[in-house]
Amino acid sequence: MLLKDLRQVTIVGLGLVGGSVALAVRRAMPRVRCVGYSHRDATRQKARELGVADYIADDLIESVAEAGLLIVATPIRTFETLFERLADHLPADCIVTDVGSTKVQAHRWADAILGRRVHYVGSHPIAGSEKRGLEFARDDLLSGARCVVTRRRSTDADAVGLVEQFWQVLGCNVHTMSPAEHDRILGYVSHVPHLLAAALVNATDPDQMRFAGKGFVDTSRVASGPANIWTDVLLTNSDNAVRGIHRVVKELLRLQTAIRSRNTRQIESLLEKAHQRRAEMIEFKIRNKELL
Amino acid sequence: MLLKDLRQVTIVGLGLVGGSVALAVRRAMPRVRCVGYSHRDATRQKARELGVADYIADDLIESVAEAGLLIVATPIRTFETLFERLADHLPADCIVTDVGSTKVQAHRWADAILGRRVHYVGSHPIAGSEKRGLEFARDDLLSGARCVVTRRRSTDADAVGLVEQFWQVLGCNVHTMSPAEHDRILGYVSHVPHLLAAALVNATDPDQMRFAGKGFVDTSRVASGPANIWTDVLLTNSDNAVRGIHRVVKELLRLQTAIRSRNTRQIESLLEKAHQRRAEMIEFKIRNKELL
Repeated sequence: MLLKDLRQVTIVGLGLVGGSVALAVRRAMPRVRCVGYSHRDATRQKARELGVADYIADDLIESVAEAGLLIVATPIRTFETLFERLADHLPADCIVTDVGSTKVQAHRWADAILGRRVHYVGSHPIAGSEKRGLEFARDDLLSGARCVVTRRRSTDADAVGLVEQFWQVLGCNVHTMSPAEHDRILGYVSHVPHLLAAALVNATDPDQMRFAGKGFVDTSRVASGPANIWTDVLLTNSDNAVRGIHRVVKELLRLQTAIRSRNTRQIESLLEKAHQRRAEMIEFKIRNKELL
Repeated sequence: MLLKDLRQVTIVGLGLVGGSVALAVRRAMPRVRCVGYSHRDATRQKARELGVADYIADDLIESVAEAGLLIVATPIRTFETLFERLADHLPADCIVTDVGSTKVQAHRWADAILGRRVHYVGSHPIAGSEKRGLEFARDDLLSGARCVVTRRRSTDADAVGLVEQFWQVLGCNVHTMSPAEHDRILGYVSHVPHLLAAALVNATDPDQMRFAGKGFVDTSRVASGPANIWTDVLLTNSDNAVRGIHRVVKELLRLQTAIRSRNTRQIESLLEKAHQRRAEMIEFKIRNKELL
């Protein structure tokens, strides 16, 4: 299937990301029917009020009946059950993707449960915020964001092409790789910052935290993300998270040794290295219009 | 001296914070003469162009000749030499303060070098950014910021009162404590986040960093601060920095153990604790109008 032949996108899960994908589909693909589903009454009600999709289904099976592309936007821990409930009800050749933050486990469940009647491709739009819920959804949340698309050797090439195009039309900067590579990279650039932020907050006395300046507030921001979602992420990418913590602890102890021995040159060179590397990253992101 | 009798404020060092203090004095204390000095020709030139002070002196000694209040806004490593150069030239009863990020060492140098002819009080306005230089100075940088004023038992009470009032008039939320307490608290809420940010960047492969999302960008922001300034900070507060790293590493290893043993409940409870504590801090800061 080519993107131009896509008639219906169904989004299951209408939180911050699912809701934002739905709004972006309505904006960028006016000819595609956008169907939404949430297992919560209140969320479906809110989605109708906000006009998030063309149609909000009350029933999961009904919502996918005519889906050319299904986007699963629920927490990772629900994927297995959801795939089991949907497997026999998806139209033949339906393309299934998701927006979860880890990909190895998602591919495993899809391969084991969905079978070959439909085509699973992984997606991870690197967008979001520490906020959660449909009320924070925006039709431009994905604009300029990176989106990693994941495929195994056996993944259908046409399905990969369609999913890549889909995210591009929604304004994403798409990169395709294996699920293992995705989980390794994101372990370092996303899960480790989350763990650092949480460790920083937990290591700080609440009374002293009142003296926190903007530095502390920003360094700890992601710790305000939803604990249950992040628990799923860490459990489904535990090896990389464990390895990432190991690396950061090593760097912290290197700084600690330099400070303890009052090695001015070493302290300054470690801080300067971080300064330079971050400057290069920011420059790269500005050049790629990823920081707006 | 009472604040209403203050005739002249001299600011030595016209970077981001020094320049912002000068601009704030001009805005909030129009009857006080604001004199600035920088050892760099180009900075003095720029300060004149931007109208940062009523008068920009070409000579350090000249700049303090009639100062009722002297604010040292240079890197901490320069304090010792600066105090030595100024000691014999400050007007009797001049009040001396600074804006450095650590206070124990500043008090030590002041006590040893400035003597009892003038009155030293420490200050640390908790404001700033990863940017540096006069071109980023703003007359509202201090508005709503916390400012810690530090005093030892021997510090002149009237001088403390004047310095407290001075920062209040500039819009700060002032807290007075001992230099040791300041360094302990700021070690945890300011120096540790800086070290974490630097360790995170140094632990991450630059190619992988291209996949960083807003989480990584924010968690690492303070690593873009000037390495030399931060080296001074860490060297003059090394015990607390070392202790702070120890605490954070302990929390990171606790998370690592929970993830490695796939202890869902423990992972979720550690993340939830961080979530809650940060929510309380943000709520406190919003209530105190410190996050604008």
